[in-house]
Amino acid sequence: MTATENKMLLPVSFYALYILSMCLGFLCVVFVCLWSGTWRGGFAWDGSFLQFNWHPVLMVTSLVVLYGNAVLLYRVPFTWSRWWCKVAHAGLLLVAIMLSLVGLSAAFDFHSANNIPHLYSLHSWTGISTVTLFIFQWCVGLGAFLLPWSPMTFRAFLKPIHAWMGMAIFVLSLISSLSGINQKLLLTLNGRNGSNTEPYTALPTEAVFANSLGVLVLIFGFVVLKIILNQEWKNPEFEQESNRPLLADAR
Amino acid sequence: MTATENKMLLPVSFYALYILSMCLGFLCVVFVCLWSGTWRGGFAWDGSFLQFNWHPVLMVTSLVVLYGNAVLLYRVPFTWSRWWCKVAHAGLLLVAIMLSLVGLSAAFDFHSANNIPHLYSLHSWTGISTVTLFIFQWCVGLGAFLLPWSPMTFRAFLKPIHAWMGMAIFVLSLISSLSGINQKLLLTLNGRNGSNTEPYTALPTEAVFANSLGVLVLIFGFVVLKIILNQEWKNPEFEQESNRPLLADAR
Repeated sequence: MTATENKMLLPVSFYALYILSMCLGFLCVVFVCLWSGTWRGGFAWDGSFLQFNWHPVLMVTSLVVLYGNAVLLYRVPFTWSRWWCKVAHAGLLLVAIMLSLVGLSAAFDFHSANNIPHLYSLHSWTGISTVTLFIFQWCVGLGAFLLPWSPMTFRAFLKPIHAWMGMAIFVLSLISSLSGINQKLLLTLNGRNGSNTEPYTALPTEAVFANSLGVLVLIFGFVVLKIILNQEWKNPEFEQESNRPLLADAR
Repeated sequence: MTATENKMLLPVSFYALYILSMCLGFLCVVFVCLWSGTWRGGFAWDGSFLQFNWHPVLMVTSLVVLYGNAVLLYRVPFTWSRWWCKVAHAGLLLVAIMLSLVGLSAAFDFHSANNIPHLYSLHSWTGISTVTLFIFQWCVGLGAFLLPWSPMTFRAFLKPIHAWMGMAIFVLSLISSLSGINQKLLLTLNGRNGSNTEPYTALPTEAVFANSLGVLVLIFGFVVLKIILNQEWKNPEFEQESNRPLLADAR
């Protein structure tokens, strides 16, 4: 039985959770777009609050939803080779990195234009650590697992570290997202940032909606972790680096 | 070779990480006590800010440090039986639950005394979910794994769910702690709550100190997760429920 045939035998619970993760990821993107686009007035790139509105949209989309889906690619029983799975994994994460950098720029530009210091809050400390570790992890992963010069012993040594770091960065993304949504609501609804809404403490509809976005991000994160940490759902063929040349892998 | 002898062969990396987790846990408690006790003016139980100061101290100590140590008990190669390990695990978690309930009371009492609504922020939503799930998990664990009437098939079925839920609750604790520290700094340093400090954006020493507490909590959390998720460090004797009577287990 090949690994591909083996993957076809994944239980219904895998498919149920995978479909649930897809729905939750989609809902996260819809909710964060509606929050920024409707309650926060929409989008621009002019140093105003409207530029900042890109920040939650791009960070949740990249660091949570795209990142989670890129990790799940290793569990989905597509009939592709390990090499193509790696390429799709790296490609989706590269898109995530680029979107997260644009999302960071939106926040930094907004701060600069409004004389707000950068990187003062605990949210910003965890957020910048998440993106820095993510980029470092991506570069090391590219050099070790996709480019041809990396020796097999090094790949085998790095693989569990790469998987562990990948999970840790994902948990960091969840922490950064939740603390960021909380911070945005505290600063915006409590009369700062020129907003005229009810205070956060009165729990206006926007606060319920954005808190619910946080809950959705959390549940999406736990569903992804549940799938990834299930040892029985691992594709055995993807689990060990072979010593076949890379181009042979590409079949 | 018995399981106990097997555990004695744990690699140096386990002991290094375990000692690191001990040091980090101790530092988390010291930092949160210093933050509340020094920068925030100390402790009282009178509905004032000084009562609220118990909240971060008790929540970090219970939901992060004691909880993490209770989980790690299953990996430490003490020469005790599985039954005593279970009793210590449940006992430490019971202390954690009681401290977390006092910590919650501190926040609720402070809100009531100052006409601040309860449970409006995303931090409070994740925090109350953490404690609720924690208590539910503890009660189910007591009924299923410590009391004698639970059948073996049910124990075997519940064990992976209990372990998974335990890890998820710990991640929730980290998220609640980080968003809580961030929220406290945003509300206190930005001139609310009667404080006369520099604003959070100016990153005064207190902010650097409390942000560092958040970083310590995070690193402690990742060290605990790293130890727990390492399949090779599991004690094989603790991994499967036997059908021996409970009192025989207690030897």
